[in-house]
Amino acid sequence: MDNLKQNALDYHEFPRPGKLSVESSKPCATAAELSLAYTPGVAAPVREIHADAENAYRYTNKGNLVAVITDGTAILGLGNLGPLASKPVMEGKAVLFKRFANVDVFDIEVNAPSVESFIETVVNIAPTFGGINLEDIAAPHCFEIEKALKERLDIPVFHDDQHGTAIIICAGLLNALELQGKTLAKAKLVCLGAGAAGLAGMRLLIAMGAKKENMTLVDSKGVIHSGRTDLNAHKQEFAKETPLRTLAEAMQDADVFIGVSGANLVTGDDLKRMAPKPIVFAMANPDPEILPADAHAARSDLIMATGRSDFPNQVNNVLGFPYIFRGALDARAKSITQDMMIAAVRALADLAKEAVPLEVLKAYNAKSMSFGKDYILPKPFDPRLIERIPPAVAAAARASGA
Amino acid sequence: MDNLKQNALDYHEFPRPGKLSVESSKPCATAAELSLAYTPGVAAPVREIHADAENAYRYTNKGNLVAVITDGTAILGLGNLGPLASKPVMEGKAVLFKRFANVDVFDIEVNAPSVESFIETVVNIAPTFGGINLEDIAAPHCFEIEKALKERLDIPVFHDDQHGTAIIICAGLLNALELQGKTLAKAKLVCLGAGAAGLAGMRLLIAMGAKKENMTLVDSKGVIHSGRTDLNAHKQEFAKETPLRTLAEAMQDADVFIGVSGANLVTGDDLKRMAPKPIVFAMANPDPEILPADAHAARSDLIMATGRSDFPNQVNNVLGFPYIFRGALDARAKSITQDMMIAAVRALADLAKEAVPLEVLKAYNAKSMSFGKDYILPKPFDPRLIERIPPAVAAAARASGA
Repeated sequence: MDNLKQNALDYHEFPRPGKLSVESSKPCATAAELSLAYTPGVAAPVREIHADAENAYRYTNKGNLVAVITDGTAILGLGNLGPLASKPVMEGKAVLFKRFANVDVFDIEVNAPSVESFIETVVNIAPTFGGINLEDIAAPHCFEIEKALKERLDIPVFHDDQHGTAIIICAGLLNALELQGKTLAKAKLVCLGAGAAGLAGMRLLIAMGAKKENMTLVDSKGVIHSGRTDLNAHKQEFAKETPLRTLAEAMQDADVFIGVSGANLVTGDDLKRMAPKPIVFAMANPDPEILPADAHAARSDLIMATGRSDFPNQVNNVLGFPYIFRGALDARAKSITQDMMIAAVRALADLAKEAVPLEVLKAYNAKSMSFGKDYILPKPFDPRLIERIPPAVAAAARASGA
Repeated sequence: MDNLKQNALDYHEFPRPGKLSVESSKPCATAAELSLAYTPGVAAPVREIHADAENAYRYTNKGNLVAVITDGTAILGLGNLGPLASKPVMEGKAVLFKRFANVDVFDIEVNAPSVESFIETVVNIAPTFGGINLEDIAAPHCFEIEKALKERLDIPVFHDDQHGTAIIICAGLLNALELQGKTLAKAKLVCLGAGAAGLAGMRLLIAMGAKKENMTLVDSKGVIHSGRTDLNAHKQEFAKETPLRTLAEAMQDADVFIGVSGANLVTGDDLKRMAPKPIVFAMANPDPEILPADAHAARSDLIMATGRSDFPNQVNNVLGFPYIFRGALDARAKSITQDMMIAAVRALADLAKEAVPLEVLKAYNAKSMSFGKDYILPKPFDPRLIERIPPAVAAAARASGA
């Protein structure tokens, strides 16, 4: 890790600080070109946009520009380190948006004195952008912020830690269930972690056919049940009458374990309590709830996924957000609806079942790769992602009038 | 103009809308590179910045990133057309910042319900940036906004329509006075227009030695005198006891006319009233207060400047803002002080007196160019600007502890 740390610091510092550069996308070498880019020529598009706001999509970068906005309260797995410290992550997100889907991103780190002030700030700067990607904002504030912004803005607003993660979880889980001969409707699920990712994941699974009564959510205090008085409204939504109190009790006969919590919170014994052919998504970063080697030692019949690139079946948001925004922007959608998210889930899940092209094998230095227990999701560098997901998302946007 | 209009619209629309592109400044082709740019490598700079906020200048683009922020209330000469319509102008400003001084810019169009909300929005997003360039905000709100932001932020805040314009006016005027054998201390000045540019211009001239008692400001209601009851606090600052009431009366025996008002508001007869060897800066855009041909017909002994590139002596802000921010960012200044502005004025004025290099003559398709009545300021494409102004500004920042 020390080598990674120094390499990462050097990468960020040299030859010049940071990871982004704002470039002119039009020629601007001569006085004649600048007279088109700026005064006097620029008056023409100004007047056209003043006459019809839609012309902003014709004459400015608005339609390809997404704000990646954070308050720095939940940075990666590192916690609340504040807006300034989050900037390398947000610049990194911008790099990924560009690299995978040619979306331009301004990272915006917000230091607001209150949730209301944060919301007002984003609303006020929204004319600049074609979409808003909220990032690394702690629950439960993230829910309130997203809801308010969706209501007040007519451009797509997406909280990636909720919906991005939910989409990849759902896609991976659909395929894992199929491989294990199970169905979403009947699967018994345990979710450890009831923050942004856990709650959004469960909601999207329910929208796709999972049953709330088959779900048991567990947070740091134990099982989320109807007798608890310490639950916020979002957790309350999942509280049920149950005698179960601990993770170990909840794991009894579970088909699926979803971990979006912390390192090493699950044991081999926990996995041994699960139903035959279980599915374990241990997605805590950087260290999963249980390491794959320990999981496989406890259960030879499982399908295992993590958030890490150095194990099979990486549940990685980069499979989602660039393409979802690409599709939403291409369709000029005013929001990102559940239909659009489900379209992304299905496109992702379907792609994993197709034969893997040679260039993907090469990129991952792999001899073979095919749909199965160790390949339930496409790889991030698969060039078919940009061909499949945005059109599916855009079609869903158009079909649902989003 | 119709040809310019269509060319400008085509320039903005094709091959893709807008003028900006956000690019990765670091390699990001492979999985290994992305593991440095994003998780897990990105955790290292996050932790370093959390430990010491100054590290944001080492590991992110903050130190080279300026926000060009507007509310769209005073777009070029076009008026209050709103934030969205201003976006082509702000993108154009970003193009100029990059082209001339390699400064990265995010354009931010703000739709705030009040001045207070606008200010809070800019304060909240300020961690993102190394500097704030306010743009096209109408007077008198622009003064209140700039004052509040300067007080609340520890990064440079600069309202280009005030100070940028003021700096170029001062530089041009210093040289014009010298050529006409006059001095700032004794010159009798008339300023037509008492908005952002006019008031800031007069203030900077006073800081450099002009006498307030020698200045007569004129707005749309006539001379700004102490008997008027309709003056805001900023105009009040320049109200004086005087029998003068009209522009024509004010022009009697004036040495200098500064126009930052509107088209065709000055006549040849007005100029005939001025003192011998007068100086006329008619900077209304796109059409000056008086056209050079009419001015020269009225007075053969004048020095004339406009805001336009198709006449000699263009007073163009692009001579200032890219280099002033370059210098402020290079010095890591916490503000842009009057000392730094004066350093920019002197560097600009001095540069006009040097021999013009061949490449500048070529760029302007000119046989010769030398300090004189038709060359009182350097040309925008002069490559010496970036060599001279930023170091002068940075030195002034260091000397004054800005």
